[in-house]
Amino acid sequence: MADHAESTETSGKANIGVVGLAVMGSNLARNLASREGNTVAVYNRSPERTDVLMKEHGDAGFIASKSIEDFVASLSKPRTAIIMVQAGKGTDAVIGQLADLFEEGDIIVDGGNANFHDTIRREHELRERNLNFVGTGISGGEEGALKGPSIMPGGSAEAWETLGPILRSIAAVAEGEPCVTHIGTDGAGHFVKMIHNGIEYADMQLIAESYDLLRHIGGHDPDAIAEVFGEWNKGELESYLIEITAEVLKQKDAKTGKPLVDVIVDEAGSKGTGVWTVQNSVGLGVPVGGIAEAVFARAVSSKPDQRAAVKKTLKNRPTVQEAGEGFEDDVQKALYASKIIAYAQGFDAIIAGAKEYDWSIDKGAVAKIWRGGCIIRAQFLNRIVDAYENDASIATLLEDEYFAKAIADGEDAWRRIVAKASLSGIPVPGFASALSYYDSLAAERLPASLIQGQRDFFGAHTYKRIDSDKVFHTLWSDDRSEIETEPSTH
Amino acid sequence: MADHAESTETSGKANIGVVGLAVMGSNLARNLASREGNTVAVYNRSPERTDVLMKEHGDAGFIASKSIEDFVASLSKPRTAIIMVQAGKGTDAVIGQLADLFEEGDIIVDGGNANFHDTIRREHELRERNLNFVGTGISGGEEGALKGPSIMPGGSAEAWETLGPILRSIAAVAEGEPCVTHIGTDGAGHFVKMIHNGIEYADMQLIAESYDLLRHIGGHDPDAIAEVFGEWNKGELESYLIEITAEVLKQKDAKTGKPLVDVIVDEAGSKGTGVWTVQNSVGLGVPVGGIAEAVFARAVSSKPDQRAAVKKTLKNRPTVQEAGEGFEDDVQKALYASKIIAYAQGFDAIIAGAKEYDWSIDKGAVAKIWRGGCIIRAQFLNRIVDAYENDASIATLLEDEYFAKAIADGEDAWRRIVAKASLSGIPVPGFASALSYYDSLAAERLPASLIQGQRDFFGAHTYKRIDSDKVFHTLWSDDRSEIETEPSTH
Repeated sequence: MADHAESTETSGKANIGVVGLAVMGSNLARNLASREGNTVAVYNRSPERTDVLMKEHGDAGFIASKSIEDFVASLSKPRTAIIMVQAGKGTDAVIGQLADLFEEGDIIVDGGNANFHDTIRREHELRERNLNFVGTGISGGEEGALKGPSIMPGGSAEAWETLGPILRSIAAVAEGEPCVTHIGTDGAGHFVKMIHNGIEYADMQLIAESYDLLRHIGGHDPDAIAEVFGEWNKGELESYLIEITAEVLKQKDAKTGKPLVDVIVDEAGSKGTGVWTVQNSVGLGVPVGGIAEAVFARAVSSKPDQRAAVKKTLKNRPTVQEAGEGFEDDVQKALYASKIIAYAQGFDAIIAGAKEYDWSIDKGAVAKIWRGGCIIRAQFLNRIVDAYENDASIATLLEDEYFAKAIADGEDAWRRIVAKASLSGIPVPGFASALSYYDSLAAERLPASLIQGQRDFFGAHTYKRIDSDKVFHTLWSDDRSEIETEPSTH
Repeated sequence: MADHAESTETSGKANIGVVGLAVMGSNLARNLASREGNTVAVYNRSPERTDVLMKEHGDAGFIASKSIEDFVASLSKPRTAIIMVQAGKGTDAVIGQLADLFEEGDIIVDGGNANFHDTIRREHELRERNLNFVGTGISGGEEGALKGPSIMPGGSAEAWETLGPILRSIAAVAEGEPCVTHIGTDGAGHFVKMIHNGIEYADMQLIAESYDLLRHIGGHDPDAIAEVFGEWNKGELESYLIEITAEVLKQKDAKTGKPLVDVIVDEAGSKGTGVWTVQNSVGLGVPVGGIAEAVFARAVSSKPDQRAAVKKTLKNRPTVQEAGEGFEDDVQKALYASKIIAYAQGFDAIIAGAKEYDWSIDKGAVAKIWRGGCIIRAQFLNRIVDAYENDASIATLLEDEYFAKAIADGEDAWRRIVAKASLSGIPVPGFASALSYYDSLAAERLPASLIQGQRDFFGAHTYKRIDSDKVFHTLWSDDRSEIETEPSTH
C-alpha cells in the first residue's frame, strides 16, 4: 500500500477509473462516463491510446492521466479502478502497481477474462493488504461494453456496496432490471462468466448442427435457412444467437456473390474459456457433454491434416436420408431439447462450483442477469428464473415442470433427428450427447453396474448391492464368493 | 543428499528396494524377488506390514529394514528404490526422506498413480540435487504387480540404464517381448499411463453400452450376453476387458440367485485418471469425446438425486425398437468401430502431450507394451503397432489402411445401432460421440464456418477465406463490407 504520503492527501474527483484503453476498456469508460453521477478517470500504459480516446471522446469529461500515480490521485475514496488489460501477467502487473498506491478499503476490479483460480489467488493476496479485489465477468463484447453488458462481479460485500451502483448504472437492462448482481465472494464472478462462455459454446454448436441438418438433409440454401432461423426467433428459441445466425446466413460475399458462410474456412477457433469450463466441470464431477462436445467439435474442425487424411481413405459416404414432412420442426424441437440439456448441465456446474469454493450463488439471479447484454441473452432464461423461483432446491433443471414438458414435447422429434443424422453421416455431437445424457438420467437401470463389476474384477474396487448399505467384493480369482469389505481407496 | 557420512561407506547388498508394502508394493517386491539376479530391500513406515510380508514370504530373500536409514544402507550403488505409497503428499514425504540419504546418481522411482505434472516437478527438483527420479506407470492391478505388469517409466536415459534390466525382469511378456519401454523423459511415463487409463474408461463404457443394447433391445439375459462376449473374444475384439465382462455377466449372486450384475448398484465410481485425461487432452486441443463421454457416463450414473428427479417427471418412455436380424453383429461392429475411434483419440493425446512437453515417444512401442499385463491388453494393439510401423507419420490412426477398412466395414452397422438406440431411449454416449467424431473428420464441409461467422459478428474474432491466406472481418454493425485485418487476440 501507499508509501507515497502525498497521494493520501489528494482528494480526487473521479468516482471510478479505467486502466487499459483498448477497445473494451475505452468502450467501458465511455459507457461509464455517459451515466449520471459518474466521473471517469482513465489511464493507459502507452499514452497514444489515451490521446485517441481524449481526441475522439474528450467531451465525455474523462480525467486522463499520463502516469499511474496521477491516475490514482485523480480518484476519490474509496478509490475504485477497473482493469481492462490482457488476462495473465499484464493483469498482475497493473494490480501490483495499483496495490502499491491504493489504501485500505480501496477497490481494484479486474474486468478481463481471468481464470477464476487466478482471481481467487489475487483476492486473497490483496485482502491481506486490506485492499478489496473484485474479479468480474463482463459479457457482450465491444458493443456490450459500450451500450450495456451483462456483468458478473465477485469479491467482498464491502466492495459491492461501492461498486454495485456504478455497475448497475452501466449494465444492460432486461425487463426493467440491470443485468448485474453480486455473484459471490472472490472468484465467483469469473467462475460464472466461465460457465456462461461454456454454455455459449454449446448454444453455438447446437445452432451449427441445426444449420448443417437443414442444409444437407433439408436441402435448403443459406437464405432459406436464414428464414427458418428468423421464424424460430419469434418462438421459444428467441435469442441473440439465433438472431445473428440469420444475419450471418443472409450475408453475401461481395467478391463471389456466394453466401459468406460458404466462403469462410470451416475451422472454428476458440479462446480458452470453453476449455476451462470442461476442465473444471469434469474436475467437479459434473457431466457437461453438451459443452465438451462443442469444444471438441471446434477442435476437430481445426485439424485439416486429420480431416484430409480421413477423406482420403473414404470409399463411399452413406446415403443422405429423405428429410420427410415436418423435418424443420423436428430440427427446431431437437435444438430446443438439446439447449435445455446444455443449460441444465451449466447450472449443475455452477451449483458444484459454489459448493466446492464456498460461494452462495443465487441461480435465479444468474439467469436474470444473462437475459440482457451477454451473448447467450434470450427469453428462454426467464424459464430458468421461474424454475428456481418455483423451487430453488430442484436436483436438475429437468425436474422443473416447464422443462420436463418441453423435453417430453420434443422428445420424439429429437430422437428422429439423431437417428436420421446418424444414418446420413451428418455429425451431431451436441444433439446426440444431450440425448444420451437425458436417456441416462431417465433409465431405470444403467450398465454402470457392469462397470462396477469389471472394476471389482480387475482392481478389487468393490461395489454396493441394491439390498444393502454395505460394501462388497467378490473373490474373483479365488472361489468367487462375496465378502463384505471396506471401500477401496486405490 | 546424504549428511550421514556412515551411509556412504556402506556397500549394500540389494540391487533394488521397495518402499511401501501395501498390496501393490508387496506384490511388486515379491515379483522382483522371484526373478534371477535381484535382491530386494523392503521398507514400510509402520513395521507391521513388513512383518506380514516377511512372515508370509520370508523365503523370497528380502532384506527388511525397520528404518529408512537401514533401508538405504542395504542398497548397492547406484541405489535404486521404488516407492509404492498413496499418490500425493505421502509420495513427497518418502521422496524427501530418500533424497536426503541418497547420493549422486542414485535412482528414486515413483511407481504410484501420480499426476504427471507432479512427476515433472519432482524430476526437476531432484535433478538439481544430482539424483535421478523416475515416475513410472504400472498397470495390471494387484495381480499384474505380482505376475507381470505393463510398465511405463519416464525419467532420464541414465536412470533407464540401471532400471531397464530390473523392470524388464518383472514385466509381463507379450509375444516374447517384455511389456516395458523407456517412454521418455521426466513425466512421460505417468502421462502415458494416464492416457492408458483414459482409454480404459472408454473401452469399458463401450462394452457397457453393448451389454445394455443386447439386454434391452436384443432381449438377452446376462448368461446369453456372456456367451456373446465369449464369442466376440475369439475375434478382433479379443481382449482382457471383453474376457472379464463375460466372467462378470456369468456370475450369480449367491444370496438371491440372480445375475450379480442385477444386484450391484448401477452407480460407477472412478479414481481420477479419467478426469485427468479429459482435462489435459482438452487443454492440449485434442478432442477425446470417447474418453470424456465415458467419464461423464460414470458421473451421471452416480447422481441418484438427479436420476430420481427426472424419472419422476417422465410421462412415457419411447417404444424399444425391434432388434431385427443381425442385431448382435451390428452391436459388435459398432463396438469395434467406436473402440478404434477411442484409441485414435488416445494416441492423438499422446502425440500432443509429447509435443507440448518435449518428449520423444515411440507410439508403436507404447502399443507394444500395452499388449500384456495392463487392463486394456488386447490383440488389437498389434494393429496399432503395425500402423505406426507402416508409417509413423500418419495424421490419425484412421488414416491407416487396416483401420480405415475396419471402420468402412462396420460403418453401416454402427449407424444402425446409434439410430436404433436413439429411437429406443437407450443411452449410447460413447457410440454416438465416436460416430459424430468420425463424421466430422469425413465431412466435406463442417458448419464450423457458421461458428466463425457468429464469432466475427459478436466479437470481431475474424475469419479466414477459402480463397486467401489472409484474415478478414465483416463490419457487421456498419455497412457490412469486408476488410482485411489482423487475427483477433481477444
